[in-house]
Amino acid sequence: MAAQTVASTTDSAAGTSVDLGPAAALSCRECGHRVPLGPVFACEECFGPLEIAYDFSAYDTEELRKRIEAGPANIWRYAPLLPVPADVATKPNINPGWTKLVQADNLARELGVDAGKLFVKDDSGNPTHSFKDRVVAQAIEAARAFGFTTLSCSSTGNLAGAVGAAAARAGFRSCVFIPHDLEQGKVVMAAVYGGDLVGIEGNYDDVNRFCSELIGDPAGEGWGFVNVNLRPYYAEGSKTLAYEICEQLGWRLPDQIVVPIASGSQLTKIDKGLQELIKLGLVEDKPYRIFGAQAEGCSPVSTAYKAGHDVVRPQKPNTIAKSLAIGNPADGPYVLDIARRTGGAVEDVTDEQVVDAIKLLARTEGIFAETAGGVTVGVTRKLVESGALDPSLTTVVLNTGDGLKTLDAVAGTGMTATIRPSLDSFREAGLA
Amino acid sequence: MAAQTVASTTDSAAGTSVDLGPAAALSCRECGHRVPLGPVFACEECFGPLEIAYDFSAYDTEELRKRIEAGPANIWRYAPLLPVPADVATKPNINPGWTKLVQADNLARELGVDAGKLFVKDDSGNPTHSFKDRVVAQAIEAARAFGFTTLSCSSTGNLAGAVGAAAARAGFRSCVFIPHDLEQGKVVMAAVYGGDLVGIEGNYDDVNRFCSELIGDPAGEGWGFVNVNLRPYYAEGSKTLAYEICEQLGWRLPDQIVVPIASGSQLTKIDKGLQELIKLGLVEDKPYRIFGAQAEGCSPVSTAYKAGHDVVRPQKPNTIAKSLAIGNPADGPYVLDIARRTGGAVEDVTDEQVVDAIKLLARTEGIFAETAGGVTVGVTRKLVESGALDPSLTTVVLNTGDGLKTLDAVAGTGMTATIRPSLDSFREAGLA
Repeated sequence: MAAQTVASTTDSAAGTSVDLGPAAALSCRECGHRVPLGPVFACEECFGPLEIAYDFSAYDTEELRKRIEAGPANIWRYAPLLPVPADVATKPNINPGWTKLVQADNLARELGVDAGKLFVKDDSGNPTHSFKDRVVAQAIEAARAFGFTTLSCSSTGNLAGAVGAAAARAGFRSCVFIPHDLEQGKVVMAAVYGGDLVGIEGNYDDVNRFCSELIGDPAGEGWGFVNVNLRPYYAEGSKTLAYEICEQLGWRLPDQIVVPIASGSQLTKIDKGLQELIKLGLVEDKPYRIFGAQAEGCSPVSTAYKAGHDVVRPQKPNTIAKSLAIGNPADGPYVLDIARRTGGAVEDVTDEQVVDAIKLLARTEGIFAETAGGVTVGVTRKLVESGALDPSLTTVVLNTGDGLKTLDAVAGTGMTATIRPSLDSFREAGLA
Repeated sequence: MAAQTVASTTDSAAGTSVDLGPAAALSCRECGHRVPLGPVFACEECFGPLEIAYDFSAYDTEELRKRIEAGPANIWRYAPLLPVPADVATKPNINPGWTKLVQADNLARELGVDAGKLFVKDDSGNPTHSFKDRVVAQAIEAARAFGFTTLSCSSTGNLAGAVGAAAARAGFRSCVFIPHDLEQGKVVMAAVYGGDLVGIEGNYDDVNRFCSELIGDPAGEGWGFVNVNLRPYYAEGSKTLAYEICEQLGWRLPDQIVVPIASGSQLTKIDKGLQELIKLGLVEDKPYRIFGAQAEGCSPVSTAYKAGHDVVRPQKPNTIAKSLAIGNPADGPYVLDIARRTGGAVEDVTDEQVVDAIKLLARTEGIFAETAGGVTVGVTRKLVESGALDPSLTTVVLNTGDGLKTLDAVAGTGMTATIRPSLDSFREAGLA
């Protein structure tokens, strides 16, 4: 690939020189304007989102592949492709990633996908049992580089736990904001790490707006909001899903990938990760399709997709898939573009279909997914039935969270019977 | 090590020839009587517990080390040392293991252990988030070999989930038995995989007795009870904790290791695993100390240890550490022997100390442990304070489960504040 000009790595905002490995500058996704690395997220020219521009020019493909393969069994094997210093693996963090890519033949049979072609990328294996550990790990390194000592975020729950855990281990104070009515598992998990946890009377979009206010206020000064002023770094963590999937497939691109949509950031970064691997020569260049999955009760992107719109009209969320309940998804338009450009689609499922899909995945593959995993599996079923997804091609479905955090969704699941400890009682229950 | 005579591998019970890799026979732990591999667990001569006898005579140390290091990132890297066929990794199972060994410097500081010397082996990273996935994976292979189609167990909760998940993926029917009053997380997790889940009115010891009755009854015919008639195979799964700890320490034995005690099987098999690595030349032979950890409300082994007894008097459990609430631990006498022989100890902590230790581990290392992890961390603190554990030596503390399954223990942990989405409300709450 072509060498990129290395912009100044002097951080104008914090006033210190930062080492974030191959990250060379921030670049506006809309107008391409470049600024030095710093805790900023919007373009000063056009207000477009800033993202990381890298200098990968020094890499030799085979050396890079070997370096990755010899790396640790976590996301830091991909440190050469992330905005982190080269010695990142030696610093205290919770080291997420390198989760299982499960060949899901039982599920394939039920969905009508060819044997050996369906895989579940199971991110419930991360330290706090969601993919959020990947993005927070990047934000932590940026926070270190920029000298922040308090980490914060707006969260639908999973992110709160991920920030709490990572901050605790890395030695940051944390203060995170969540909707006041989250699942108990997510509340306790966010609180147990000892940081401040603040419930906001409102939904996620209200929490998000509040954080944007706080960041411009003296009260929020010196705080690193992982998904606001550290967002360009944070978001890159999702690329590691793409890297791992390809490496675990034997350095091959999947043909089709089904990704949940909350803000849409994850889907866009998975596409970015796949493109990087192609440009670096680590995988063969070939077409792939990216599909987005939403819950019907919060489906602004699939609604726009189906209507043929380029803009996404905000919705008021009402779904059990709370980790996807972002009614005004920042990256919605980019998701629409990627789905259309790659020949994918955006689809949604009802809450009932989400629950059915959670149970289906559990009884076929022994994977207990969060509601977001029910959304992707349910959407995959729907896409196979409609013919949008080709059942003869290699397909990866993401499970981004853990069923233990959304127990209410399957609360009807319980004991077959309760009996006395005797064979007579066992026989009476009809279980013999 | 000396070559062992290979006993007949004809399975007299199932009437078929079985391939369980290096497993050569079953051998009585008490009298040494050997019988062919089969679904039996008690010695026909003396009623002592049967365990696996291996033939490791063909292994060259350096070749074995290389083979292990080139293996998959799960327990099957140790297939040459387990009672499983050589091609085990190609069969459908949930592939537990290779969980993180976390260098816990923040926790070390709080406990008064030297920097760089304290490690947490965090088995919450397993597929169903407890170490039970390791033992069930072995039982599944034995069940396949012996032709069972239904898997069963008595469980304090974690095992039920592990059996449910593994059975679902491997294509077995499952019917598991648990005390009727378990934590909701464990009940739902055990039920969601679609097998039968039966609550027994009684405690774990009642459930266990019921299963022993069932196994001798026509109603239980053809059932593989992972922790009864498949117990010799099942129990070997705990050896993988010892293997992983040593490999992750750079093929070195830890000096001290703190292990929770339920039945005591895990602790005895960790000792067995360490001894095997020494005999195989994979680690240098040197002394190590094994410490057992119990909750005060179910402390039959620590009570016997402190009283200087060789026998363990059963107790009626009353503790929040339900996964350790076995009042009549089958391997209790062996635990006493190992703790004394290695210069370790057996200690217990109150439920309050368990909760404090859960929070301590969370806020120092970002690890949210189950109550059993609170027991080991709490006991470690007590052992350092008493001088029984040397703070200058390499010490590994086991966390065998996940905090999400025992939320009730830390239910008092929650939001710092609930506010309206405004800066004024934020300031009023005193959080700025």
